[in-house]
Amino acid sequence: MATTLKDVALKAGVSVKTVSNVVNNYPYVTDAIRLRVKAAINELQYQPNLSARYLRKGRSGILAFANPDLSNAYFSEIGQVVIEAAKARSYTVLLDHTGGERSNEQDVVRGLSPHLIDGVILSPFALEPEDLQPRQESIPIVLLGDRIYDVPYDHVTYDNVATARLATQHLLSLGRRRIAALGVQEAEARETETSRLRLRGYLEALEEAGVPLDPHLIIRGLPSFSRFYGARAMRQLLSLDTPPDAIFCFNDLLALGAMRAIFEADYRVPEDIAVVGFDDIEEGRYAVPSLTTIAPDKQKIGDLAVAFLLGRIDGTRTGPPERIEVSCQLIVRESSTLRG
Amino acid sequence: MATTLKDVALKAGVSVKTVSNVVNNYPYVTDAIRLRVKAAINELQYQPNLSARYLRKGRSGILAFANPDLSNAYFSEIGQVVIEAAKARSYTVLLDHTGGERSNEQDVVRGLSPHLIDGVILSPFALEPEDLQPRQESIPIVLLGDRIYDVPYDHVTYDNVATARLATQHLLSLGRRRIAALGVQEAEARETETSRLRLRGYLEALEEAGVPLDPHLIIRGLPSFSRFYGARAMRQLLSLDTPPDAIFCFNDLLALGAMRAIFEADYRVPEDIAVVGFDDIEEGRYAVPSLTTIAPDKQKIGDLAVAFLLGRIDGTRTGPPERIEVSCQLIVRESSTLRG
Repeated sequence: MATTLKDVALKAGVSVKTVSNVVNNYPYVTDAIRLRVKAAINELQYQPNLSARYLRKGRSGILAFANPDLSNAYFSEIGQVVIEAAKARSYTVLLDHTGGERSNEQDVVRGLSPHLIDGVILSPFALEPEDLQPRQESIPIVLLGDRIYDVPYDHVTYDNVATARLATQHLLSLGRRRIAALGVQEAEARETETSRLRLRGYLEALEEAGVPLDPHLIIRGLPSFSRFYGARAMRQLLSLDTPPDAIFCFNDLLALGAMRAIFEADYRVPEDIAVVGFDDIEEGRYAVPSLTTIAPDKQKIGDLAVAFLLGRIDGTRTGPPERIEVSCQLIVRESSTLRG
Repeated sequence: MATTLKDVALKAGVSVKTVSNVVNNYPYVTDAIRLRVKAAINELQYQPNLSARYLRKGRSGILAFANPDLSNAYFSEIGQVVIEAAKARSYTVLLDHTGGERSNEQDVVRGLSPHLIDGVILSPFALEPEDLQPRQESIPIVLLGDRIYDVPYDHVTYDNVATARLATQHLLSLGRRRIAALGVQEAEARETETSRLRLRGYLEALEEAGVPLDPHLIIRGLPSFSRFYGARAMRQLLSLDTPPDAIFCFNDLLALGAMRAIFEADYRVPEDIAVVGFDDIEEGRYAVPSLTTIAPDKQKIGDLAVAFLLGRIDGTRTGPPERIEVSCQLIVRESSTLRG
């Protein structure tokens, strides 16, 4: 027979309520009592059954964070924030890797595991708005990123156009005029929304500055935002009759791949080619040279996503879904400044 | 009332068996029929209930990969292999981030979600052997890494002593004699098993070569294997009266942090200090200079872990648990070879 709270209470010589307080990590228990209860829990191999605990309220206590690519630190860094924020509210987060495939994302929305998961934070990549029509049995969803508009879910994002313009203006302010844009990503044979918005910001900055556009400097059709495709695209740009003197990469992984290709071709960063990325992943801070980038407020993205989701789950957040934009800032590092 | 397979079959004008074949992605259905069934599924908003499908066999169809640090690409790269291998067998993988905390790891072993998960691949960090005693209701577990011995679970690992010796021998073969070891990691105030084994390999290589040991060159007490602590430890080594001429880092993130600190102090890699890491994460291949490292066979680790786990789940793998070692190889890159 399974060990119960009562067995633990008897063993520890305390009340069931006290055992419950320890199991729930409530603060009203002295350290001595806590240790005694934990010893009893260990001895009896009592399993604090979170499932049972939440199921009383019809909940599993588990959230999912579904994202296209955990090997991209942008998502794993937001994942860490989500895990911490959820933990502070006694929720566990499982990470679901969709690979950016529409069918996997559809599974997430349809509730692959409707009795397992109380709510989902979804960073969609290939999903279309029609996939996101609500259904009666739907669990709450919070969306991240710029992929989907006009859907009945809370949505945390930032202004991709303005930030891409800022990144490009920074390169213009260094006196660079042949600024490449790397790269426009495609999913299911269409440009992704994020790419489209960042490209628009780049184009707006060039136009404002009266710098003519050279279409050869825009790299399109990237299958993914990876170091590999960044390096490959950069080699293509370096083979132009007049290579670029600066490059705005649509994420940091592309930029790190591009810097590697620049190094291999014996050009210097930033003297010959200044580089700006997007995401502010930790790797860029340690790169040689360190990477100038756009830093979305990842802490706020993760915190808001969890707060919105738990609010929908526990019913404290009502009213129509909101679209919230967090701030981004330009962080200037060695890849766009000469070392003194 | 929920839509059933039968409703879909009626709508599409096919048999229930055909709908089932489409839902299960079996190959015996023509594209035309598949499209018709999918249209009916969409129209009726039928939810292919994977849970129900597996629950007939008493299974959820979900595996967990629990690991201490998804922001370390070593784990996310193995995670990718696990996801792919599981997907080929129609299993979904959820990633559980333990943060390397013993209590979280205990939760995993005790089955935080016993009705949710069919089996667990666990890469433990702080867990002690006594935490891993089997219990009647335990779900199958496969262990990765060198932390735990003599437990009743299949275990996929590699020879840390031999590979650390190999890394150190490589630096010795370059004529380096002041070779630092960075670093020994501690969990719950004890050296981790992985650290201990890698340190042993380093010491054996020095001893075989007759190179006297300078204890100042061994960095101990690292809270985690991160770029931050790698950079910090390297600054400490560079402040010695005679800094090292080579450094063996116990993982790639430490090595990448160390390379950044070497760059900031205006030393050169590899001319002044040769650097070797461990894990062969993608970042090291794109670093400037690219990072020499030890590459465990991550593909095989992930494939074996999934094969063993599914074998235990479906009962085709019987007999006592095994401990399997996969191979590792030294990959020499720019951080330990002069550019020609």
